[in-house]
Parts: sequence; C-alpha cells; structure tokens
Amino acid sequence: MSRVNFGAKPNLFPMPVLIIGTYDENGVPNAMNAAWGMISDFKEISISLSEHKTTENLRARQAFTVSMATEDYVEACDYVGIVSANKVPNKFEKAGFHATKSDFVDAPLIDELPMALECKVKSFEDGILVGEIVNVCADEKVLTDGKIDPAKLKPITFDPVNNVYTGIGKVVGSAFGSGKQLKIGQGNDLFMEEP
Amino acid sequence: MSRVNFGAKPNLFPMPVLIIGTYDENGVPNAMNAAWGMISDFKEISISLSEHKTTENLRARQAFTVSMATEDYVEACDYVGIVSANKVPNKFEKAGFHATKSDFVDAPLIDELPMALECKVKSFEDGILVGEIVNVCADEKVLTDGKIDPAKLKPITFDPVNNVYTGIGKVVGSAFGSGKQLKIGQGNDLFMEEP
Repeated sequence: MSRVNFGAKPNLFPMPVLIIGTYDENGVPNAMNAAWGMISDFKEISISLSEHKTTENLRARQAFTVSMATEDYVEACDYVGIVSANKVPNKFEKAGFHATKSDFVDAPLIDELPMALECKVKSFEDGILVGEIVNVCADEKVLTDGKIDPAKLKPITFDPVNNVYTGIGKVVGSAFGSGKQLKIGQGNDLFMEEP
Repeated sequence: MSRVNFGAKPNLFPMPVLIIGTYDENGVPNAMNAAWGMISDFKEISISLSEHKTTENLRARQAFTVSMATEDYVEACDYVGIVSANKVPNKFEKAGFHATKSDFVDAPLIDELPMALECKVKSFEDGILVGEIVNVCADEKVLTDGKIDPAKLKPITFDPVNNVYTGIGKVVGSAFGSGKQLKIGQGNDLFMEEP
C-alpha cells in the first residue's frame, strides 16, 4: 500500500444521479440533476442543493420527485444538469421528457425514467433539502418477480474524479449475508438470523 | 409506462457502501458499514447513523475515515455491517482488516481498502454525522494517469431492494458533456464552456 494524497475533494464512489422533478408556480415541469443525495431515514431523503429554478419551485409547491437517471436517457439526464430553466424555460421539454403528475404529491413524474421517489418537502435549510418519501414507484417493465431489478432499470452513477457516468455491474455479494462466513467460531449468540 | 406503487421505502440506486473507521478511547480500531451517506458540500460528507460503537468513538475522538467498500473485500465489508464491536471487541481484526493511523486525523485507515476520505467531525446531531473532508487518499495501484480509476478500485453499491451488492459497470456517458448535443439550436449564449 502506497497511498497518494489528493487533498480535500468531494469524491465518493458510487455517487447517484438523481433527477429532481418539480412544478413551478404556473405548473410548468422542471428537472435538474443532483449527485449529492442520500436516504437519511426509513422514509426520508436528503439532498444538498444550491439555488436553482428547482429551489424556487420547491418553495412554491412543497413537493418533488426523485427519478433515477438511467443509461437509456443519459443525454437527457446530463442535459438537465448543464442547462438552467431560468435561461431555457422549456428545458424539460427540450430534454425530451414528458411529465405525468404524481398521484401522491404536487410534482411531476418523468415518463422516460422508470423509477422515482415521490416526496413532500419536510425542510429546506442551509442548502439541505429534506423530503418525506411518500411513495416509491417503478414501471412494471423494470421489475423481476414484482421487485425493482437494477439490471433492467440500468441506473447510472456519477464518477466525480473523471467526470463520467458509469452503469451498474453484476451482483458481487449478499448484503447481511456475505459476511456471515467470517462469523464462524465467534459464538452462537451471533447467529441471530439463523436457528 | 405502467407504474407500480411500493409505498414509502428507503430505496435509491445506486447507494454507496461506506466503511467508517474510528478509534475508541483506548485506540482500538473499529469499522462499520453505512449506506446512507452523501457528499454535502465541496469539503463535507454527511452520514445518517443510529447509535453504534462507532458513534461512541466519534464522540470520543472527533474524527473518522470513510473507505469505499470494494469487490475484493465484500465479505469483510459486509461482516462489519452485521456484527457489533459491543459484542465482538476485536471485530476489526476478525474482519481481516489492518489499521494504519491517518496522517491527517485521529482515525484509522484500513490497509485493505484502497480509497478513503479522512474527516474531522463538524457536527453530530439528530443522527446526522457531518464531517469536514480533510484529505482524500488512494493507493497508487488504483490510479490511472494519477487519478483514481473506479475500474481498478472496484467500489461496490448496495441494492436496498434485493439486499445484494453490485459492482460498477462500464462508462456510459460524459458528465457535463453527454447532454451538450441537446443544446444545439438553443442559442450561442448557452455554450458557456466552448469558444
């Protein structure tokens, strides 16, 4: 191991590519691209946002959707990250996106992106948007046995070092499973999940 | 598009697998696995954490590292997520990890995991740990042309729907680039990046 130091950088692998959908005060849909987001509780998402048309919309409508950017729409998803709706008012349409109003919140779902979280604004302070996740929805074409299948969804990741998007690879392990073999010999009390 | 509703779920693609490294008050290293984390500013990381041995350590030492879990150590990285150091005090060692003290903060780097963020605790309130990123380091073996190369690092992602880990796939687009073709015909003022 010979470590190289890079200084203080906003680098993490993998980072998501989240497409935030909102309506403005006149009902015009908008979308923007954000990589600084996470699940912050079982029914909560947090996203770090600077000021955009989207943040005006969030304050006006108190709701948003978060769609997963996908390989199939990488150009459109990148486009909404490099163009502002303050300069291109029909940005959403220019991206080739079509909006359908969420059944749960006052925000648009994006027909082209098969999986989304539908959220109400809980708070938006100091640049951190916190949303209550009201519903998760996905097109049936990205499901396998009734569950969202990332191999069909094809979400993309943002690589902040090389400024590229990558796909998701194959399954390499079982969460809450792969590590069990290392527990052998540590006492039966650890095998909580197994008889 | 025929959308299926799943209710309120903590689902996002991709989610990271962050291995948080800390020392306890006696200098014993610990590691835990967290998927609820994001970059929250250019020199800041935020992680949503419930109470663990790690949170005691964070309060005692005011520092931590965040290593990217990798395909090569998926068992060890999963193990530190399913066993508590409160039950297995030498959990770090049992995982097969070896610690080297960070040059920048009072926390251990994990020799087996090639890329890490070295962080000072900025705040830890309401279950949200906010860290100042002091340095990013990576083993030279995961670099290409001096930059961190995810194809060599092989970070994993957590799939919260199917409880599996997946690798990172191939490059599918250029960030701040793939979307430019959609800007054609929208006026020269938009081509900020190009002469």
